[in-house]
Amino acid sequence: MTHPSPYLMNAWYVAATADEIGTDGMLHRKILGTSVVLYRSEDGSPVALHDRCPHRFAPLSMGRREGDALVCPYHGLKFNSAGACVHNPHGKGVVTKALAVRSFPVVEKHGFVWIWMAEEAADHALLPDYSPLDEGHENGVARTYMKLPVNYRLILDNVMDLSHVDHVHGEIISTRGQLSPLFPDVQETESTVSAAWEWQQTPPMLILNQFLPRPEEEARHWIQVNWSAPGNIQLSLYCAQDDTPVKEGPGQYDLHSVTPEDEFSTHYFFATRRNHIEDDAEYNAMKIRAMHDAFENEDGPVIAACQREMGERDFFAMNPVLMSNDLAAVKMRRRLQGLIEAENSAAITLEAAE
Amino acid sequence: MTHPSPYLMNAWYVAATADEIGTDGMLHRKILGTSVVLYRSEDGSPVALHDRCPHRFAPLSMGRREGDALVCPYHGLKFNSAGACVHNPHGKGVVTKALAVRSFPVVEKHGFVWIWMAEEAADHALLPDYSPLDEGHENGVARTYMKLPVNYRLILDNVMDLSHVDHVHGEIISTRGQLSPLFPDVQETESTVSAAWEWQQTPPMLILNQFLPRPEEEARHWIQVNWSAPGNIQLSLYCAQDDTPVKEGPGQYDLHSVTPEDEFSTHYFFATRRNHIEDDAEYNAMKIRAMHDAFENEDGPVIAACQREMGERDFFAMNPVLMSNDLAAVKMRRRLQGLIEAENSAAITLEAAE
Amino acid sequence: MTHPSPYLMNAWYVAATADEIGTDGMLHRKILGTSVVLYRSEDGSPVALHDRCPHRFAPLSMGRREGDALVCPYHGLKFNSAGACVHNPHGKGVVTKALAVRSFPVVEKHGFVWIWMAEEAADHALLPDYSPLDEGHENGVARTYMKLPVNYRLILDNVMDLSHVDHVHGEIISTRGQLSPLFPDVQETESTVSAAWEWQQTPPMLILNQFLPRPEEEARHWIQVNWSAPGNIQLSLYCAQDDTPVKEGPGQYDLHSVTPEDEFSTHYFFATRRNHIEDDAEYNAMKIRAMHDAFENEDGPVIAACQREMGERDFFAMNPVLMSNDLAAVKMRRRLQGLIEAENSAAITLEAAE
Repeated sequence: MTHPSPYLMNAWYVAATADEIGTDGMLHRKILGTSVVLYRSEDGSPVALHDRCPHRFAPLSMGRREGDALVCPYHGLKFNSAGACVHNPHGKGVVTKALAVRSFPVVEKHGFVWIWMAEEAADHALLPDYSPLDEGHENGVARTYMKLPVNYRLILDNVMDLSHVDHVHGEIISTRGQLSPLFPDVQETESTVSAAWEWQQTPPMLILNQFLPRPEEEARHWIQVNWSAPGNIQLSLYCAQDDTPVKEGPGQYDLHSVTPEDEFSTHYFFATRRNHIEDDAEYNAMKIRAMHDAFENEDGPVIAACQREMGERDFFAMNPVLMSNDLAAVKMRRRLQGLIEAENSAAITLEAAE
Repeated sequence: MTHPSPYLMNAWYVAATADEIGTDGMLHRKILGTSVVLYRSEDGSPVALHDRCPHRFAPLSMGRREGDALVCPYHGLKFNSAGACVHNPHGKGVVTKALAVRSFPVVEKHGFVWIWMAEEAADHALLPDYSPLDEGHENGVARTYMKLPVNYRLILDNVMDLSHVDHVHGEIISTRGQLSPLFPDVQETESTVSAAWEWQQTPPMLILNQFLPRPEEEARHWIQVNWSAPGNIQLSLYCAQDDTPVKEGPGQYDLHSVTPEDEFSTHYFFATRRNHIEDDAEYNAMKIRAMHDAFENEDGPVIAACQREMGERDFFAMNPVLMSNDLAAVKMRRRLQGLIEAENSAAITLEAAE
Repeated sequence: MTHPSPYLMNAWYVAATADEIGTDGMLHRKILGTSVVLYRSEDGSPVALHDRCPHRFAPLSMGRREGDALVCPYHGLKFNSAGACVHNPHGKGVVTKALAVRSFPVVEKHGFVWIWMAEEAADHALLPDYSPLDEGHENGVARTYMKLPVNYRLILDNVMDLSHVDHVHGEIISTRGQLSPLFPDVQETESTVSAAWEWQQTPPMLILNQFLPRPEEEARHWIQVNWSAPGNIQLSLYCAQDDTPVKEGPGQYDLHSVTPEDEFSTHYFFATRRNHIEDDAEYNAMKIRAMHDAFENEDGPVIAACQREMGERDFFAMNPVLMSNDLAAVKMRRRLQGLIEAENSAAITLEAAE
């Protein structure tokens, strides 16, 4: 990776959902502009290698697996799951040090496979913790994936400013215009920004109201987004009636995580755990399909249209008219940019010292 | 618009045919590289706004209409037909001066909606007059629209040099090789160029001969093109036999008008009024379809192929071998270039003085 | 052609198979970035002209033939097979010296039409000789054509390093891993590189074994590639059992020839003559179809994937890890690059002296 990088490198990104990677086959995915081949070794642990043979640059994902090793489709070089060449069928079979592919640290956690793309050693302390996704029945949590032709920041903006739910989304998750007038409670640290909204609406949100005592009557709602650099937003949504504390009512604990494919294309991962109808596989499948569709048909087209109108220009350079609802998103963008710039400065200093 | 601009800015361009813009819905069209949303207000008058919300650059044309106002699909900002924000649902609903979209002057005339894209005040004296299009039965005039992947000058070249009709077009409008040998009468002013051809042919042009006394016998023909900067060419075509003055014979009064979508894509508008079978809606529909098809299937593919061969190079920089038939087109290109350069020089002078 | 050119210009390239060019119609093909129209004159000899009218750059291939002349589709200029304008229908019909299209020397040989793209006089001594293709029954030789979205060097690399047959290809032409361990015999001159492999395998190659005394038993095999700058590789393949000299056993004499469409797209021509079942048209058709499919489905996708991974970067600049099997390909690339650079230096010297 050349510096300055447009991405925060010393960080974990979601590479795939756990389901996308099987013990058979391989998954090709471009991450931060780099071709990666993902697969699961015979013991079940995920593996990520540079999807480019060092010989003539053929993608290993077009080749075949031999146990945990990958065989290049072009000239048969074989690489183990650490990226070392374990067989060179050519000439005397010499394996030089250069005859290797880069291996990327990966960790399976919360139903996703996370990847570390930096050349620096992986810092496991930076792996975020979304344990509530794992707590409860297996049919109470679901995940999905989609790809959007936009810079990843535009998706983060979307989730950090939930006032858009008043306007973009249909009846099922309508917030009835209640979020836009609010000034959310925004908190930040160097690498996190959170925002929370509290409001009442009648009827309550239709995805939750059937789990309330009086489905058609007013309920208190609470929603919170917690961004962690670079691409994770944990979202909690609950509602309640009467004296029930809002966080004890029906609700869900979600993760939105974005991983740049490149500067203008983004892998978008989503997970949701709910505290109601947790054991019904069919309901679970319906629920994740509805969430997937809401994004694909409602947010997605609008965000993609914004990107088309922006072209390759920088968001701030286009002088957006920012409003109260942009506060959390703008803080998120500034924190992220600060971290990227700090990382690039450090890299340049390091290179100069070498 | 940054200077130097590749377009003549202080001018009226056709944005749409009157029929394309309804009182319901919106039309998105990119004009001179800028996204425009066109619609008709409830009183029927056309409106053109920048199709980009100033907040996060969503296209307003993806949103919805509320009477004469447009509501942004992303966060619900509402803009009236002058581009002023009339509702901000966020926070305290403050509407700053910056919270507005640019409104473009538009005029409906001759069955087209004309737009003024310059930042300077619209000069209505520059709106061209093609009144004959409006004179007569409503079924004696028709309009059409198409888009071509070429620089707009290539379409103007095509119409300014009618010798191409001898070679490109089929039997219906064949001129039987009679125009190419002629040296047309070419006249010019600072912002106009005209050319006229007179000839005889047997049989007369097949679109007109059935309205002559002796359809199969020789007739005098006259055709004239009148270019007005930047993109309008008015074309008149008549034929006659015996002592009838040629302009009193069967014929038609047309307008070809081109509007750059961008430097390599062009909106092409066409209108035609004839002085025969003026009251037959079915004949009228057949006539405009035939004209549309002639362009789409005959001129269009050749012009597009020329553009592909030119790539993004400048026409004159490729050293075309110019001939007698190019005279009017070359004068048109030089006049147009002179006007664009004068406008850019004036803009630079103005900026320097500020 | 501007200097420096990315192509070797003073050379013959295959423009088309003889079958692609008929006495009716025209073939448009872009060669070394230049649009060429190919056709066969009434006496059967092939013709190649710049496919760009000098007037307004319309492709002549969109026009029509009048005997051996081509008529421009746009304004009717007519050019003879030497590229001279023989009719200008405009004005007084003056034909200036500039009113001509460039004609390219072409030669029909070995079932292909070869073209000379340099501005320098064609050097017929540089036309390669693959006479064995012409010797024998007409049904013992076949040709095919395909286009690949890659730089032409990647196809040359593929053929110069036949160790790939061990890995890329299916059962029919499998070499059972026997080539990769070998150090081929590599020979070179200023503009040629050859490599030869000898080995034994059981069963023998399945495309040849049925013509051996004992089809299922071990046979000696010999394969040789002979590259001639810029784009030709003659390949010979034979096998034998017992005391039969290997080159007297069943085998084939092939030509692989690449012609850049542009820097990242290549016309790939192939011919094969065999010394067995020479008179069976149906077998011949099956044979060439199998060879075509092997390339299209096996080598082609891998080579195209390498190009996608390389983007527009230079092969050596990406630091490939080269191995023993790359020796002939690397020598070929260096010889080719040397010839291109020498040609460019000579051209610059010439221009400076003018």
